[in-house]
Amino acid sequence: MSVSAHLSWHQGLKFQARIGDRTLQLDSAEKIIGAFTPMEIFLLALGGCTAMDVRWIMDKQRQKVDRFEIEVHGKRREDDPRYYESIDLEYIFAGEGIRQNAVERAIRLSQEKYCSVRAMINDKVRFNITYKIENQNHSEKFVFATRT
Amino acid sequence: MSVSAHLSWHQGLKFQARIGDRTLQLDSAEKIIGAFTPMEIFLLALGGCTAMDVRWIMDKQRQKVDRFEIEVHGKRREDDPRYYESIDLEYIFAGEGIRQNAVERAIRLSQEKYCSVRAMINDKVRFNITYKIENQNHSEKFVFATRT
Repeated sequence: MSVSAHLSWHQGLKFQARIGDRTLQLDSAEKIIGAFTPMEIFLLALGGCTAMDVRWIMDKQRQKVDRFEIEVHGKRREDDPRYYESIDLEYIFAGEGIRQNAVERAIRLSQEKYCSVRAMINDKVRFNITYKIENQNHSEKFVFATRT
Repeated sequence: MSVSAHLSWHQGLKFQARIGDRTLQLDSAEKIIGAFTPMEIFLLALGGCTAMDVRWIMDKQRQKVDRFEIEVHGKRREDDPRYYESIDLEYIFAGEGIRQNAVERAIRLSQEKYCSVRAMINDKVRFNITYKIENQNHSEKFVFATRT
């Protein structure tokens, strides 16, 4: 399967990106309206990829998830190339009876087997992965142990 | 510098992504309206990143660029994780008097020094880079020789 995209320069460092009939505005400025920077959408690609895997695997494991969110936080290097030297991923689940080992398994399968975006990221980027399980009475945060 | 993003599950595999007050819809389906897949925006992140570098460097080299586009084409693996086993990048410049060595230099600086997205992509992904220089009378395509 193939994906094709087209980027066309507009002005300054503004570009219009197009995939099929869908468009997205890209810009480099930090305070921008209606546009994203390439490094911003890189984080969304990563977060979205693992989010979909995990949501799907939790469903297969018959876990009842009422709310599911991911917080992604990337810290850029000071020097060129200013890639993310570390990325924090926090998966947040809300629902009754969500099992911790089901969450661990879903995250592990995404990180190690399914997430196509994750599989392209090299070892220069350090990952810190945590997750929270919340229900009506309780919220607990855990550190996911990445295999090395 | 840090970037923070938030992804929130909507329904099925639809997620709403948010960075500051800007939002983007993510979905997994192949025929989707108004949303992008994570692998699609990964290609846009890469294309946008190198596009901005190259545009900026061409300007510093006083090259008069009237039109500048990038075509990005990613071929996914058949097996999980279905990352891009190859990515074709074609830079297209139109303008009078654009020097080939200025183009080569701009692409090389982006690929090897500046592009933060490129710097995070591992060696499992094969890159094929070409560029076209067009003017009123002529259009010529070149293969960019990636250093290995």
